Amino acid sequence: MSAHPRLSINQATIKHASLREAIDATVRQGVQSIGLWREPVAELGLAESARVLGDSGLRFSSHCRGGFVTMAEGAERRAAIDDNRRAIEEAATLAAAGADGSSASLIIVAGGIPDGSRDLAGSRGRLEEAIAELAPEAEAAGVTLVLEPLHPMYASDRAVLSTLKQALDLADRVGSPAVGVVIDAFHVWWDPDAEEQIARAGRDGRIASYQVCDWATPLPADVLLSRHLPGAGVIDFAELTRWVGEAGYTGDVEVEVFNAELWAKDFDEAVADTVEAFGAHVGGHLAVPVRS
Amino acid sequence: MSAHPRLSINQATIKHASLREAIDATVRQGVQSIGLWREPVAELGLAESARVLGDSGLRFSSHCRGGFVTMAEGAERRAAIDDNRRAIEEAATLAAAGADGSSASLIIVAGGIPDGSRDLAGSRGRLEEAIAELAPEAEAAGVTLVLEPLHPMYASDRAVLSTLKQALDLADRVGSPAVGVVIDAFHVWWDPDAEEQIARAGRDGRIASYQVCDWATPLPADVLLSRHLPGAGVIDFAELTRWVGEAGYTGDVEVEVFNAELWAKDFDEAVADTVEAFGAHVGGHLAVPVRS
Repeated sequence: MSAHPRLSINQATIKHASLREAIDATVRQGVQSIGLWREPVAELGLAESARVLGDSGLRFSSHCRGGFVTMAEGAERRAAIDDNRRAIEEAATLAAAGADGSSASLIIVAGGIPDGSRDLAGSRGRLEEAIAELAPEAEAAGVTLVLEPLHPMYASDRAVLSTLKQALDLADRVGSPAVGVVIDAFHVWWDPDAEEQIARAGRDGRIASYQVCDWATPLPADVLLSRHLPGAGVIDFAELTRWVGEAGYTGDVEVEVFNAELWAKDFDEAVADTVEAFGAHVGGHLAVPVRS
Repeated sequence: MSAHPRLSINQATIKHASLREAIDATVRQGVQSIGLWREPVAELGLAESARVLGDSGLRFSSHCRGGFVTMAEGAERRAAIDDNRRAIEEAATLAAAGADGSSASLIIVAGGIPDGSRDLAGSRGRLEEAIAELAPEAEAAGVTLVLEPLHPMYASDRAVLSTLKQALDLADRVGSPAVGVVIDAFHVWWDPDAEEQIARAGRDGRIASYQVCDWATPLPADVLLSRHLPGAGVIDFAELTRWVGEAGYTGDVEVEVFNAELWAKDFDEAVADTVEAFGAHVGGHLAVPVRS
């Protein structure tokens, strides 16, 4: 099966690959776009990563990830915000190095409730303050801070941002065009407000990314690894993909799967499996075949 | 510590107790109210269960549970709806047998997406049709069908009803005074709309129950057993209990904990632990001390 032109491989899907290995497997399998993670980029160095990416001819679809900014003011918070500043610069550099149609998107995972605290509202407030602080810098760098609402089962320890509505409300209050959202199927499929909020995100011009992976039960012992390739679970990708398309999104669609079985495979085989699952369950529902 | 007058022990907290054992331990520990499950009632028989409950002097706070009505029309669905009819009668009988202040509440767990289906919207529609079919019978029996939105991590396999807003919207559409909701801390604590929807539930006269147990991570391998006694997790019971109180709820507050460690304890010890946790983390935030 040839790879869908809007498919992007999120590097987490082949987590154990180095940056070069990930790019090579993505190119070999005929995929046109890749989403990167900070750690493999740091391992190779930003400048060399940008050179390898540029040479590959791939589009760059997102940089994972910034955020984790729910702690109270102090040295730890300042360090986290400075680290987000570096991530903004990385996203700008990599997007500039990628092929035409690359997206300077920095995915933002909120962070959980600080250890020993029960202050969910305060944690959410501190997330918003950090986004407000970083937004002007992101805007100046041409980077979008892409808020990622995570499934509510991660609300205490990974992301106090749990729904698209909450993310869009936050974006409205911050009021910067540099704040967007990602619609991740795994995180939003259950949400009774998903259709309405996806449409709203489109109207507001805030859909920066669409990520697909599937939900299946029983959940594994480590719920971080409960994601599956499209088609292996209960998500109706026809409907969800139609909603995202009707909201006007025409960019790359990332497959980001954390799955121990997929991680154990040869990188090319894992990418080939991803190409096939995407083609069978998502690609056919993308009304616009390539980024215009 | 003496038991708070509004505390009710949900029998699932001492899952391995028979009905007599559960009632005896609850009475011995000075608790005034109990929520029952259908299986132990069936084991003893409804008439004898009602007699034992009546003799105990306990209030009856809820009957667990009806629902599981998301399947397509056919024999299986008819059997499920008939089973809910029997549950309605049980709830009426037990509430009549309990002490003054008992509540004829039948907790409704929606059920998941049928095996092999990806039709979440259809499953939700079939839940609503079943509630509409059962509501007149519940009303005639003086029983409230208490919709329980479950945490979204159960949306595929246990409950397609995931938020208070969704439950209240459904109740509005059905339009029967016999449809209520339960606010279960474990299921709603993460919801950015919780405060607003709890207030709405109060205005609409739909708060039929308030259940408390705590959320902590990491989740255990079986996420059904991820509940903890109040105080052992991240939920801010001061805030949540205040919201429920401000919404006008003055009834019993159930502790419903599915927890392997608690289940392994002697029944009296488990109830005593519950009394203590409730007193320390919830009772002090209940503005109205007893059901008026």
